[in-house]
Amino acid sequence: MAEVHAERRDRMRERSSAAGLDAALVTRPANVRWLTGSDSVAALLLTRDGAEAAAAGPTGPPESDGGCTVLPVPAGTDPAVLLAARCRARTLGVEEHDLTVARHRAVAAAAPGMEQLRDLGRAVEQLRTVKDEEEISCLRIAGEIADQALGELLESILVGRTERHLAMELERRMIDHGADSAAFPTRVGSGDHSGRADHSSGDRRVEDGDFLTVALGACYRGYRTAATRTFVVGLSPADWQSDLHRQVFAAQRAAREALTVGGGYDEADRAARRVLGAAGQPAPDEAEPAAREGVGAGVGLEIGEEPRLGPLELGKLDNRVPVTVGVGVCIPGRGGVRIEDTLVVRPSEDGGPELLTITTKELLAL
Amino acid sequence: MAEVHAERRDRMRERSSAAGLDAALVTRPANVRWLTGSDSVAALLLTRDGAEAAAAGPTGPPESDGGCTVLPVPAGTDPAVLLAARCRARTLGVEEHDLTVARHRAVAAAAPGMEQLRDLGRAVEQLRTVKDEEEISCLRIAGEIADQALGELLESILVGRTERHLAMELERRMIDHGADSAAFPTRVGSGDHSGRADHSSGDRRVEDGDFLTVALGACYRGYRTAATRTFVVGLSPADWQSDLHRQVFAAQRAAREALTVGGGYDEADRAARRVLGAAGQPAPDEAEPAAREGVGAGVGLEIGEEPRLGPLELGKLDNRVPVTVGVGVCIPGRGGVRIEDTLVVRPSEDGGPELLTITTKELLAL
Repeated sequence: MAEVHAERRDRMRERSSAAGLDAALVTRPANVRWLTGSDSVAALLLTRDGAEAAAAGPTGPPESDGGCTVLPVPAGTDPAVLLAARCRARTLGVEEHDLTVARHRAVAAAAPGMEQLRDLGRAVEQLRTVKDEEEISCLRIAGEIADQALGELLESILVGRTERHLAMELERRMIDHGADSAAFPTRVGSGDHSGRADHSSGDRRVEDGDFLTVALGACYRGYRTAATRTFVVGLSPADWQSDLHRQVFAAQRAAREALTVGGGYDEADRAARRVLGAAGQPAPDEAEPAAREGVGAGVGLEIGEEPRLGPLELGKLDNRVPVTVGVGVCIPGRGGVRIEDTLVVRPSEDGGPELLTITTKELLAL
Repeated sequence: MAEVHAERRDRMRERSSAAGLDAALVTRPANVRWLTGSDSVAALLLTRDGAEAAAAGPTGPPESDGGCTVLPVPAGTDPAVLLAARCRARTLGVEEHDLTVARHRAVAAAAPGMEQLRDLGRAVEQLRTVKDEEEISCLRIAGEIADQALGELLESILVGRTERHLAMELERRMIDHGADSAAFPTRVGSGDHSGRADHSSGDRRVEDGDFLTVALGACYRGYRTAATRTFVVGLSPADWQSDLHRQVFAAQRAAREALTVGGGYDEADRAARRVLGAAGQPAPDEAEPAAREGVGAGVGLEIGEEPRLGPLELGKLDNRVPVTVGVGVCIPGRGGVRIEDTLVVRPSEDGGPELLTITTKELLAL
């Protein structure tokens, strides 16, 4: 574990102490990874003067790594319970949005002298929102990898191929270009499946004249980006396709441009809805559920992490917070357009938001 | 939802009633799927005289499907909380091994007139252990799909290719042969990575003389099998490789042959350990953690479901319970052999366990 992880643990220790906790037990995988730099550590206990991590892997004596004692987890043992049994704290914070009721009960029973188990809430997720330049660099590379894979696919023949095959090819190409894996299951939607945020790649074959929506992202050193693009298959788009694309593009651009340091978590979403409203698109209550979801969320070790960007969100964007910004509109039975980017919030004097997903957003005819 | 799902819901309703519960809220995805036949239903509430399901998907009015009312879930709403709010029961069973503490609290707060939330435990998982012939047919097909994919790969060139690429190719071939997806991330371990139950396919390139262990499975209509095979890359195995393979093969065969209707969950494991012990392999306490895990577990909508097969497990096998049976031995730094099958427990008068994973277990030289 590097110095940066020790420093992150210090910051979490301060948070936890300020909340009146003697110790904090972190179990959500992305949170544990951020605090340790390891993807074999399954749970982490932060105490006032130290840290213990429970790691899956070969047996061996406990070892020390960057100020953190690493303990092996016997097969069949809950790593959280293992650490709780060693915890002398009287008040322990746990992640109630991660531990099941059954695990929570086992942790409470295992910790000797425990008086109170309290909720850490999303304390670690909130610390994770602002990225350092090293993390942003990993996100930048993840974005480039996905852009490369998509660019290569767009030069190949698409008509007649199934959504599922195109998705698998994109994932293979991302791994070939250095990704650990895809950031999430690649979503390819053709024809009436296009434009949606939630369509899983299926067996429909791409046809001439289709809208084709591709949502993809690479995972690089644990860091994940997401991009969505919509194209037309064939010589040129139909008028209804160009019109729809123009509206969605304008709304998504307005959302991107609304990302400012100090701006509210709700501003990008409101900007998009204003543009869609002016273009005659349905108001949020009447629209499909997907349209009622916010315009995006944070990315880092997870897609869809803090902060959530949406009409009801409080909170303000900081410098170096990476987020997705996506807008989609579907016409039932015909398909639609969805465009999404990953950007890093930056001060306007530094040029405003840094775009990590650079593939053109134009309505290319393929 | 078909009649079979209504009948399963009736059986669960009886269980729940016998435990003194007015209603049962099922949230674990495989359990919900088994009770409804649907993979868009996110939570299911069983009451004394009915059933309500909360499903993701387009908005619309509630609809009735096979005696179950299906309600849409607004974006951002917890389906379990949605159903709890409509629940008039005084005692409600929930899956405490699935609901987080946070969700459990929200369910308790939402249910009007609720006096007591109690634990359903693994009641649904236990009902799921005995499969009907339709389910076994899906497992059989999943096994065949994986066998086909593996057979094709073994005819291709392996030397010089990375573990990760071989894994991706196997997954692509399984989907080409009709799988929904892989049953789990395909594990290819070459050289010193071979023989392990937990190695994730990496960037090591296959070399002449390597052991090559492949663990794969297909998911077909939600049903999943698993098989592990170990081969040698090159003209012929070294003596140490043949010897190790012979021992592991014998131990795994003993485990398979110990599967009987009415036999204990511990018997297959004990049979394997006896053979390994006689062959001079380390006793369980001294062995790697993976060796201390049981020899297998149930398969169906999940890999590693009930029942667990291991030295400390109580309970007896029934007819039509599909399980994995796997044995592996590794020599640190050199690699090892792992062999695993999926079989359906059948009466000896019907020929004993039905093997679903038919690729040869011989130590082929490739």
